[in-house]
Amino acid sequence: MCRLIGYLGNPIQLDELLYKQEHSLYKQSYNPLELKSGAVCADGFGVGWYDKAGKPFIYRNTNPLWNDPNLEELSNYVQSTCTVGYARLAGIGEALDISNCQPFRSGKLLFVHNGEILNFQQTLYRPIRESLSDATYQLIKGMTDSEHIFALLVETWQSSPDSTLLSALRGTLQKLTKLASEYNTSFSTNLIVSDGQAVAAIRYAYRTQAPTLYWSCDAVKHPNQVIVASERLSNQNWTAFPEQSMLFVQAESLQPTITLLEKFA
Amino acid sequence: MCRLIGYLGNPIQLDELLYKQEHSLYKQSYNPLELKSGAVCADGFGVGWYDKAGKPFIYRNTNPLWNDPNLEELSNYVQSTCTVGYARLAGIGEALDISNCQPFRSGKLLFVHNGEILNFQQTLYRPIRESLSDATYQLIKGMTDSEHIFALLVETWQSSPDSTLLSALRGTLQKLTKLASEYNTSFSTNLIVSDGQAVAAIRYAYRTQAPTLYWSCDAVKHPNQVIVASERLSNQNWTAFPEQSMLFVQAESLQPTITLLEKFA
Amino acid sequence: MCRLIGYLGNPIQLDELLYKQEHSLYKQSYNPLELKSGAVCADGFGVGWYDKAGKPFIYRNTNPLWNDPNLEELSNYVQSTCTVGYARLAGIGEALDISNCQPFRSGKLLFVHNGEILNFQQTLYRPIRESLSDATYQLIKGMTDSEHIFALLVETWQSSPDSTLLSALRGTLQKLTKLASEYNTSFSTNLIVSDGQAVAAIRYAYRTQAPTLYWSCDAVKHPNQVIVASERLSNQNWTAFPEQSMLFVQAESLQPTITLLEKFA
Amino acid sequence: MCRLIGYLGNPIQLDELLYKQEHSLYKQSYNPLELKSGAVCADGFGVGWYDKAGKPFIYRNTNPLWNDPNLEELSNYVQSTCTVGYARLAGIGEALDISNCQPFRSGKLLFVHNGEILNFQQTLYRPIRESLSDATYQLIKGMTDSEHIFALLVETWQSSPDSTLLSALRGTLQKLTKLASEYNTSFSTNLIVSDGQAVAAIRYAYRTQAPTLYWSCDAVKHPNQVIVASERLSNQNWTAFPEQSMLFVQAESLQPTITLLEKFA
Repeated sequence: MCRLIGYLGNPIQLDELLYKQEHSLYKQSYNPLELKSGAVCADGFGVGWYDKAGKPFIYRNTNPLWNDPNLEELSNYVQSTCTVGYARLAGIGEALDISNCQPFRSGKLLFVHNGEILNFQQTLYRPIRESLSDATYQLIKGMTDSEHIFALLVETWQSSPDSTLLSALRGTLQKLTKLASEYNTSFSTNLIVSDGQAVAAIRYAYRTQAPTLYWSCDAVKHPNQVIVASERLSNQNWTAFPEQSMLFVQAESLQPTITLLEKFA
Repeated sequence: MCRLIGYLGNPIQLDELLYKQEHSLYKQSYNPLELKSGAVCADGFGVGWYDKAGKPFIYRNTNPLWNDPNLEELSNYVQSTCTVGYARLAGIGEALDISNCQPFRSGKLLFVHNGEILNFQQTLYRPIRESLSDATYQLIKGMTDSEHIFALLVETWQSSPDSTLLSALRGTLQKLTKLASEYNTSFSTNLIVSDGQAVAAIRYAYRTQAPTLYWSCDAVKHPNQVIVASERLSNQNWTAFPEQSMLFVQAESLQPTITLLEKFA
Repeated sequence: MCRLIGYLGNPIQLDELLYKQEHSLYKQSYNPLELKSGAVCADGFGVGWYDKAGKPFIYRNTNPLWNDPNLEELSNYVQSTCTVGYARLAGIGEALDISNCQPFRSGKLLFVHNGEILNFQQTLYRPIRESLSDATYQLIKGMTDSEHIFALLVETWQSSPDSTLLSALRGTLQKLTKLASEYNTSFSTNLIVSDGQAVAAIRYAYRTQAPTLYWSCDAVKHPNQVIVASERLSNQNWTAFPEQSMLFVQAESLQPTITLLEKFA
Repeated sequence: MCRLIGYLGNPIQLDELLYKQEHSLYKQSYNPLELKSGAVCADGFGVGWYDKAGKPFIYRNTNPLWNDPNLEELSNYVQSTCTVGYARLAGIGEALDISNCQPFRSGKLLFVHNGEILNFQQTLYRPIRESLSDATYQLIKGMTDSEHIFALLVETWQSSPDSTLLSALRGTLQKLTKLASEYNTSFSTNLIVSDGQAVAAIRYAYRTQAPTLYWSCDAVKHPNQVIVASERLSNQNWTAFPEQSMLFVQAESLQPTITLLEKFA
């Protein structure tokens, strides 16, 4: 159970998102309010952003988010229109490796995931890997279920010339659900993914309950900002994702659409 | 506000103390129950022990205690009759440096401290340092109030050929209280200190309230063990330290004595 | 190209091996003399040892060996009759993850490896993994060729009730060579492996040159010690391994035997 | 003995300076060519830069420079007209603490230092500290001679309303030399300091030899760049600093001036 954040909108400094909000990611790392299990999200963290040219950057660390003075510096320096962030709560048996820290990146895609494939090592770990092309296989550097879900997404995205981010996401959920059914496991998968021009966020689970996910779009105070987060950053203007739903928002319009996802099972 | 533990008794493996108890130091690091402030004790940790020849060893890390597989290994290997442990909650502005992690050691002494000198940097930091001999001055490697209290203890201990651990501790509290009065600050100082043959533990505060401290000595189940800890390790047989009190126990007898401390102010 | 060390003999403190020798592993980490490529072995390190009951322990860190005060403490505390050590020089693209640090362990086995499977990610990475049983597959926590060779060894060892450490090692080399031939790559594999009662060390390469490896057994000065190391620890009594050779020594006799290995190709 | 770099000129990405040059700071960290002692500069590193508004930022890490993927990201993102960088070789007894990593910063000043006060702990450590105002005293977070020299500079700079960076630097050298004479020690002090608008670099020693320092200003190929570095970044257009000399360059003109420093002894 990690804590996620995603942003699309007018250019802001990262500290707006990571530190300055009432219940910022910084605060969620040591005082999370809606974790399904565990106490803190202190097993590393990461942030990803796009520069003006649309090139994605990542910064990750295995320390607790609150224990990294470099992140404070960086957050005061970096400005971006599109950002994802993540505070980690490691799964059982997962090492405190930088390779296990998110966001994951491939080409233009940045990706953060919160959730769990039940008994991942014993269930979908090997089947997912063995379903991948060599190129995608070699992208994987760590051991987490999260990175393997990302690999599935990359594979799906690249396997068809016609695929869009949305169709690739649906395809990924479909594959995951099929595999989970086949290997008799359950999973939850809240995720935020971006290509710099659009952000998609999903709350989805199969045979279990998905963690919380919220979005905010304050047409009055902040007309040019869409934020998605595991926990509300403040008391105002946050809407909970329904179960099995997806938000999609593009930089041009900044009008988020919420879609209910079919049950792929 | 850190969490402390101290042990004197028959030889045990460190994991008995650090992991296996119901509310072990491991658990206290991510789920502390009696912190006066803060959420977790995840800014590093340390453990110190004596080998059969009475030589003190220390192991310290800036990661959260729960995130160190080496500590698990070590705790399964090391056996000792005398141990101190510590999970850190850094004070404001204190860096995540190994030099700021406890236990501190000088000669045979191992020392862990929980508490705070209010506004330390602006109040007693410089006066304490400038009161020290060159030799003790050069012992200090970090910035914490804890290490400076330890330096005061070492200085007091070494300044008189007749001093015992107990007289040095009283002398240290007296000096601290005098300085705090002079510089108009307050402090709390729970500490556990050992020379391998005896353990002294103190709960003391000046113009503020001391954090919790407990001791356990189960004459029936564990006749040969005395444990001191910031929080009870289990529901049985733990006694709270009165305010302004000191426990002292020697390896020979394992009979702890509790003394109320005078107000040095 | 890492630096390895292995020890079997009378009980010694680890610091004898890691720090006190003229050209100790400590020194080899910042001033290696016989690296085939690279400048220093500063991408982490590890040490493994057995306690009196024959239980294996490991200690690993991603810092340079010379930058770990905990290792100095540990090395002064731990005594063992059987030890392996390792200073890492990461391969290109390998993350500085604790999971990529050796020694690796499974059951009683401790294992350190120096060498390289050429273009591992693109050649044998996937074929090795896919040849493994589920149990062995799940042992792998990192990305290194070294760990995958270890997995092959574990698999070979466990696949036959009659296998000995020696037969498992030969089987592993045979499989590796066959795979390398099939996937048109080369590899070098210097390794030291132990079960606590015996140490086997191999210098082997296929279509390339193996790194250096030496052994020492000073019948006069140190009749009860056999040491294997990537570089001579001193100027005296060290013998170079011939190419394609294996040393085997048991705790009972401490008489090493050197065997030339067949070409498995 | 650390390796330093400083830059003033047209806006460049940090990777130009840190990675892309033939003998970049990256390369100097594992393969330094002109160290007076030691093998590598792998005990941490740091980089400092100014944004368009002239605000200084720092990024520091205790890992070897080559082992930080975040630095690569950052170096591809950050653009600046004024930068300092540093790869650390820790002095004996200095902990691998982030607080001991440079650059140091105070107000607009960024500062990196290479050199040594001989037997610092036993000689000038305490005298320097005790000469400081409380405000400067509290700036110091680590234990290095470098940071204490920086504190002297800050103190000198702030003690007179008329002081310029140059006069403060001279005052600092004068104080240091006087103290070294008084306490019978020697020191070398290569340093690069900036306020974002100008860079000053000094090669100075008292009773010992200063480390190497070079500057480059290629009027033809790179008319808008002045670089200072411990080792030449390439084979062309580098000039060695004379002993006891100072370079000063301002953003407006980018015309460096070299001044021989008086002997303050």
